[in-house]
Amino acid sequence: MAVYIEGKKLKAMERKVKVGEVALRFATLVLGVSAAALMETNSEVKGIVSIQTKAKFTDMKILVFLVIANGLAAAYSLVQLVRCLTCMLHGTMLHSKAIAWAIFISDQVMAYITLAAIAATAQAAVFAEYGQPEFQWMKACNIFTRFCFQSGEGATMALLVSMASICLSGISAFNLFRLYDCSFI
Amino acid sequence: MAVYIEGKKLKAMERKVKVGEVALRFATLVLGVSAAALMETNSEVKGIVSIQTKAKFTDMKILVFLVIANGLAAAYSLVQLVRCLTCMLHGTMLHSKAIAWAIFISDQVMAYITLAAIAATAQAAVFAEYGQPEFQWMKACNIFTRFCFQSGEGATMALLVSMASICLSGISAFNLFRLYDCSFI
Repeated sequence: MAVYIEGKKLKAMERKVKVGEVALRFATLVLGVSAAALMETNSEVKGIVSIQTKAKFTDMKILVFLVIANGLAAAYSLVQLVRCLTCMLHGTMLHSKAIAWAIFISDQVMAYITLAAIAATAQAAVFAEYGQPEFQWMKACNIFTRFCFQSGEGATMALLVSMASICLSGISAFNLFRLYDCSFI
Repeated sequence: MAVYIEGKKLKAMERKVKVGEVALRFATLVLGVSAAALMETNSEVKGIVSIQTKAKFTDMKILVFLVIANGLAAAYSLVQLVRCLTCMLHGTMLHSKAIAWAIFISDQVMAYITLAAIAATAQAAVFAEYGQPEFQWMKACNIFTRFCFQSGEGATMALLVSMASICLSGISAFNLFRLYDCSFI
């Protein structure tokens, strides 16, 4: 009887985890595309006709990395979303350790890549906003205000992508390691 | 018989994981202390007597964050190392879900903090090494060469701390989620 109740509880938990996974993968897809699009379309021209300076996202390599990381996260989420929905429609469960390991490693890599990208972008944003007087690096955001504002919007979405990816890596860890039955130990 | 073999295999795996965990926690402790010490003692004075410029780690907030993150990782590793060794000496295993969850969350937080710190430091290092001509940010490392070199050494150790923390977060995920027996599902 205890085993039956435990089994029911685990089934309910499994269902909740599955729904959470689908929601998070969908959010990652939408936010990843939005972040990449916001960053990629960002540019601003300042100065008069003869002395014009243009700020564009390719000026900073980290913004290019952020676009790539978020594009990658969105594409990966789409693939995983299709897999999740197919499994849900057919009522099948993940029992293969090999597949669970592949998903776990991919999710971990995605979480770490998106986090590294947003952390490095945050550092670049701090320099652009406040400068670094000790090295004579002047503030850039009081010149390219609109550029910085749009970059901030993109970075906020990228931060959300990173947080969703971290949650997803936790879910895939659950999906993998619960396959290692502890009742033998 | 199959259950017995499976049980033996899992016991051997458990032992390997435990030894790996101790080794990684010890490495994190040593490397974390070394990284923090290298960063904290780093300073360089340039120029003549009347016009002297001093670079120190507190000039860049990210280096302060890196010192804190690595100090924290080292202190946390020491606590976990004591726990691991006590468990090994008494031959006890982790069976409490609450403790396993606490360790899992702490390890995840450590992995993400150390990774964010090193990613942001890497971005600052790129600016210091190559400058950002579009914003008139000049290279700083051709002036403060020794400072940059020592920072690079500290950052390399911090990168290793981050990688060890990532592996540890995987181990604690295994230790937690294998408690969720899948045989009921």
